[in-house]
Amino acid sequence: MTTYVLVHGAWQYGESWDRVRPELETLGHEVHTPTAGGLRPGDSPDVSTDDACRPIIDYILDRDLRDFVLLGHSWGGVLIAKIAEALPDRVRRLVFQSAFVLLDGQTVLDNVPPFFPPALHANAADRGDGTVLLPFEIWRDGFMGDATLELAREVYDRLRPQPFRPFTEPVDLSKFAELPIPKSYLNATEDNGLLQGEWGWHPRMSNRLGYFRLVQMPGGHEVMYTRPKLLAEKIVEAGRD
Amino acid sequence: MTTYVLVHGAWQYGESWDRVRPELETLGHEVHTPTAGGLRPGDSPDVSTDDACRPIIDYILDRDLRDFVLLGHSWGGVLIAKIAEALPDRVRRLVFQSAFVLLDGQTVLDNVPPFFPPALHANAADRGDGTVLLPFEIWRDGFMGDATLELAREVYDRLRPQPFRPFTEPVDLSKFAELPIPKSYLNATEDNGLLQGEWGWHPRMSNRLGYFRLVQMPGGHEVMYTRPKLLAEKIVEAGRD
Amino acid sequence: MTTYVLVHGAWQYGESWDRVRPELETLGHEVHTPTAGGLRPGDSPDVSTDDACRPIIDYILDRDLRDFVLLGHSWGGVLIAKIAEALPDRVRRLVFQSAFVLLDGQTVLDNVPPFFPPALHANAADRGDGTVLLPFEIWRDGFMGDATLELAREVYDRLRPQPFRPFTEPVDLSKFAELPIPKSYLNATEDNGLLQGEWGWHPRMSNRLGYFRLVQMPGGHEVMYTRPKLLAEKIVEAGRD
Repeated sequence: MTTYVLVHGAWQYGESWDRVRPELETLGHEVHTPTAGGLRPGDSPDVSTDDACRPIIDYILDRDLRDFVLLGHSWGGVLIAKIAEALPDRVRRLVFQSAFVLLDGQTVLDNVPPFFPPALHANAADRGDGTVLLPFEIWRDGFMGDATLELAREVYDRLRPQPFRPFTEPVDLSKFAELPIPKSYLNATEDNGLLQGEWGWHPRMSNRLGYFRLVQMPGGHEVMYTRPKLLAEKIVEAGRD
Repeated sequence: MTTYVLVHGAWQYGESWDRVRPELETLGHEVHTPTAGGLRPGDSPDVSTDDACRPIIDYILDRDLRDFVLLGHSWGGVLIAKIAEALPDRVRRLVFQSAFVLLDGQTVLDNVPPFFPPALHANAADRGDGTVLLPFEIWRDGFMGDATLELAREVYDRLRPQPFRPFTEPVDLSKFAELPIPKSYLNATEDNGLLQGEWGWHPRMSNRLGYFRLVQMPGGHEVMYTRPKLLAEKIVEAGRD
Repeated sequence: MTTYVLVHGAWQYGESWDRVRPELETLGHEVHTPTAGGLRPGDSPDVSTDDACRPIIDYILDRDLRDFVLLGHSWGGVLIAKIAEALPDRVRRLVFQSAFVLLDGQTVLDNVPPFFPPALHANAADRGDGTVLLPFEIWRDGFMGDATLELAREVYDRLRPQPFRPFTEPVDLSKFAELPIPKSYLNATEDNGLLQGEWGWHPRMSNRLGYFRLVQMPGGHEVMYTRPKLLAEKIVEAGRD
């Protein structure tokens, strides 16, 4: 039995794992899915990356979770890197699922194709409340291209406004590269959220992990909705010793 | 029910889709497979890219097809880009299947590995009738590496001489990049026709589409012969809203 | 019926194919799995690349094998290139399975990610007997990331010390590029032994073959242990005419 702490991506929250959790539990594992700061109902969107990590760190400490696999999806990759810096002795393995791996001092927006930052800045200015949203067309084709239109819309309609500050502020990862925690990268081969190649998740960001285990599966960026059973199996492959 | 207009690649013609059409029809769709100018029996090989598009545009206009998915395979990617420029309001989505995506003003030969252009020019000079053929060894290993030798030969023996002018003349795509038509790229992961990486179909040419849906499947360049049923399913994934 | 000569990678030996041989034989083929010089019990580790090839060439000549498919895995890619130079008329097709394809005059260490050479040199200095070993963590995550921990350990425990000289001495491949032997590359898509992308097996080293057939399969670097049945099928796809 392994304990998994699953950290969602931008616009998402703990319940985003609702289709995957029972699959992992059926395989005999214990699953935790805390929500990042800024994404819980009632949270202020004016959060730093550290603020976003805080409720997850508190969740882990409150329950005294130890020896767990810490998985981050997408933006969640930034969070698990910071959480691992804060709690290095509690993490058995890090799994980055189609996730950002930032270099020390970079921002999230440093790592996305060049058309994204101006579009997101314009959206943030329009909204004026410190959050951003993605247009449905981007979500549908880039993030959920493997879903039916109905499922893509259903998930899209339940997304929450994403705090913009954690996309634009540099992240201090000065300790991350030295952490002696084993790492895996779980890549979905049809994920076109950042396009593939020059700006892709893998191997561009994955290779920043140093030496790591590579696990791949068919599917897009949101396989927790489109292939939850297969994702659970691949999480186990990525997370086991 | 979706209407599909499938545009074949070089050396091929409407009947090249004969194994895929019934699979798509079984899935409930309407399928059209016109042949490009220069490839129909009796056509002069002395055609421009516009001449190659003409019979397909006429086919669409004659039947007043509207709201269709326009798919181009290989060289057919050049043709569907031009056809979309000519009939932008009729195309619901463009699907590039292991297809050329040219930059405005480029030629097809600008986009193939460096050993191809001299070999094709030499072949054109040898043949002296304005057409080119591929050696069987190239076809077998690069284009149909996933087929049995028998199937690769059977398909090769039915190829038609390809007009060479549309490979060597620059293509005006000055309007293509601005078309607001959604786009998908369907990539077969063992296609080694142009080698992969530096000269590959995906992500090199696919990323020129701007933001797009990525669909992948196992197989080589000619999956219409080697995996017609799976290809039909993937065409639907690539072509749906 | 095809005759296959399978050449193992570094740290391995003829018996490394024990799970694959019966699968290929069941498919109707004849299989030979000689061991390279320096890897047989009692061999001196002080061998050149030519010395490593010698027992395999002798094996082929002793049995007068002709018209066979010659496959090399990993470091075995270096060996089959040299063996093909020595016996060009006997080889029907070359298959490189997640294998090194060196440029003329390069060393193996020229072709691995930058952190490997200093680590291997340090290990060689430590051992002091002309051989190197990999740390288990590298083997487990990079080479057998698709295996259970138990299988990864079981295989690791049976590895043999690898002669270091063939990694550090330049290999003369001045004749290889001109050999008119058809070539295939068999790539396992989760092989992270050299990381993927900048230092990966495919397309970086595969594309040095010139034009070739690409066959891919899921799995890591050691699919002869993790997926022997599928590997046998893919060897046949890669090796057939």
